[in-house]
Amino acid sequence: MIDTPYLVVDSGRLDANLRKVATRARASGVALRPHAKTHKCAEIAHRQLESGAIGLTVATIGEAEAFASVGCTDLFIAYPLWVTRHRAERLRALAGSAALRLTIDSVEGAARMAAEMIDTEVEVVVEVDCGQHRTGVAPDEAGKVAAAAVEHGLNVVGVFTFPGHGYGLSGARHVAATEESSALERAADSLRCNEIDPVVRSGGSTPTLEFADTSVLTEVRPGVYPFNDAQQVELGTATFGEVALFAASTVIHRTGDRIVVDAGSKILGADRPGWASGFGRLLDFPDARITSLSEHHAVVDVSDTDVAVGAPDLGETVRVIPNHVCTAVNLVDEIVVDCPERGVSWPTLARGRNS
Amino acid sequence: MIDTPYLVVDSGRLDANLRKVATRARASGVALRPHAKTHKCAEIAHRQLESGAIGLTVATIGEAEAFASVGCTDLFIAYPLWVTRHRAERLRALAGSAALRLTIDSVEGAARMAAEMIDTEVEVVVEVDCGQHRTGVAPDEAGKVAAAAVEHGLNVVGVFTFPGHGYGLSGARHVAATEESSALERAADSLRCNEIDPVVRSGGSTPTLEFADTSVLTEVRPGVYPFNDAQQVELGTATFGEVALFAASTVIHRTGDRIVVDAGSKILGADRPGWASGFGRLLDFPDARITSLSEHHAVVDVSDTDVAVGAPDLGETVRVIPNHVCTAVNLVDEIVVDCPERGVSWPTLARGRNS
Repeated sequence: MIDTPYLVVDSGRLDANLRKVATRARASGVALRPHAKTHKCAEIAHRQLESGAIGLTVATIGEAEAFASVGCTDLFIAYPLWVTRHRAERLRALAGSAALRLTIDSVEGAARMAAEMIDTEVEVVVEVDCGQHRTGVAPDEAGKVAAAAVEHGLNVVGVFTFPGHGYGLSGARHVAATEESSALERAADSLRCNEIDPVVRSGGSTPTLEFADTSVLTEVRPGVYPFNDAQQVELGTATFGEVALFAASTVIHRTGDRIVVDAGSKILGADRPGWASGFGRLLDFPDARITSLSEHHAVVDVSDTDVAVGAPDLGETVRVIPNHVCTAVNLVDEIVVDCPERGVSWPTLARGRNS
Repeated sequence: MIDTPYLVVDSGRLDANLRKVATRARASGVALRPHAKTHKCAEIAHRQLESGAIGLTVATIGEAEAFASVGCTDLFIAYPLWVTRHRAERLRALAGSAALRLTIDSVEGAARMAAEMIDTEVEVVVEVDCGQHRTGVAPDEAGKVAAAAVEHGLNVVGVFTFPGHGYGLSGARHVAATEESSALERAADSLRCNEIDPVVRSGGSTPTLEFADTSVLTEVRPGVYPFNDAQQVELGTATFGEVALFAASTVIHRTGDRIVVDAGSKILGADRPGWASGFGRLLDFPDARITSLSEHHAVVDVSDTDVAVGAPDLGETVRVIPNHVCTAVNLVDEIVVDCPERGVSWPTLARGRNS
């Protein structure tokens, strides 16, 4: 027996989502290396690998350690770590049990990594900024960083980027995918000018995936697609029927057209981009809007709810779709599979592994 | 040895914050019942109780169970639970080890609670909406709900409210505190009209605390004050010098006036009210602004940073203040006390106890 709120995965929808993306990657001839920060679960990682993924992407050493501990043997830490001595010890231990790919995005970072890691067999890729303006070097600078790394003795195998600015309405996904391929192409040329072969040209996020230019990309790293979320629905990447994860929650208050449910920011996460319609969506009430979110309350406007359906009553259970599933999953210790009565849940193995 | 990012509490500042609020409550003659959802730590709960708090406030049964398990014997679940049979079993177990106060905010909720809890000794208070428009009944309706509860055999001892709309700039704190006392006064009168004595009149949040009308309130329930956070600094409730919790993080990227540190929304939380200047603040660089936040990246604009101080370099550790400390603490398993070298950390006992 479990009380609301709790996260539930619909395993049938999950498997359909995994199949869809694996099939698309295979048909396009690009390698699929899903980002495991989204699900954090050994069970889902194994399903991804069994359905054709070549390895996993992770964001932190801690996530890599978690997935290595359950037999994942090909891991890409897509993050420009500052390699201190202590991080290097952990990376060396990891490299003993998995093929490891690391990130650089500066000459200084490359020197630091080389100073600590020179005797360890790892692959290195250069992160490129394709327009999100977060980490990564400008595409034309990739060759300089790669050359510095090679000079220090590192094994540079290519370039990657994250088209995170594809999270936006009105064509942003298409624009970001175009900028992604152009940035990777220029970065690859920049490596070639320095006599380094850009074997790996990795890109992709869930919203840009369908526009990815597979004449340039060799690999894609979508994260959110196993579950999808309210952001993906509102971006047009997924339908309500493709959302595989939600928070089961209880209606605890009703005043007129306002209901309040017990799923707040401590289970949904507080992500709320400017273009989103609210703080998440209700799976069975598509016209409802979550107008505000506290730690343990979601305030829902049901004024537009279909009269025939009616708004949910006090004590009823409703299914809430988080805006951003990666941060929601990181708030729970386990995910209920299908329904509590089944008695199965998956631990979120890599939850909280921030470092 | 611990790698960034991790949360650190400054224990000297923590104790000063605890003393300041305990002293103020004592001087005003109101009981202090801090909200423990903020810190989730046994160590801090005990310090609050030792310095004069009469008990704790919590948001969920799980939080109550966590604090009861470490000897806290007076607990108020300030949340209108829908009391199913399973929740009632847990509440009865709790009532065996602690004085328990529960919340109602509807006639239906009172009937439900009474049906399951009638043979258990608990106190009940009516939640009142003083302007936040989340849960709670209108002040003048409090008597009706209280009377229904009494008729069902529940022990109604008073009313409470949360002036959450005091989180805003330009006098919102003062307005909310005024509305809080007026709502509690009307609700108390509404109980008296139904011949129920409103012994408890509980209010208070960290930003409204200094304006709380102690001629009406008998109790205050601030949560954030042990740590404070970037929201409290920007609201004017706390100074930078009173912030006792931050994320130690590493500069992993620098391009011109933009630096990126490795504390993202998975350790800071993604809370970002419209009036906030960004997604958190840098303790030692007050002119810097966090312009965007991803799961593992904070992008910081350092263009306004004091030239004499200079912006932090690649690899440097910087201290980031979360916008909302309650959600940040909920993301980690432990909080480092003062510095990693001290070797002490406090487990976040009630982390993730959403239900």
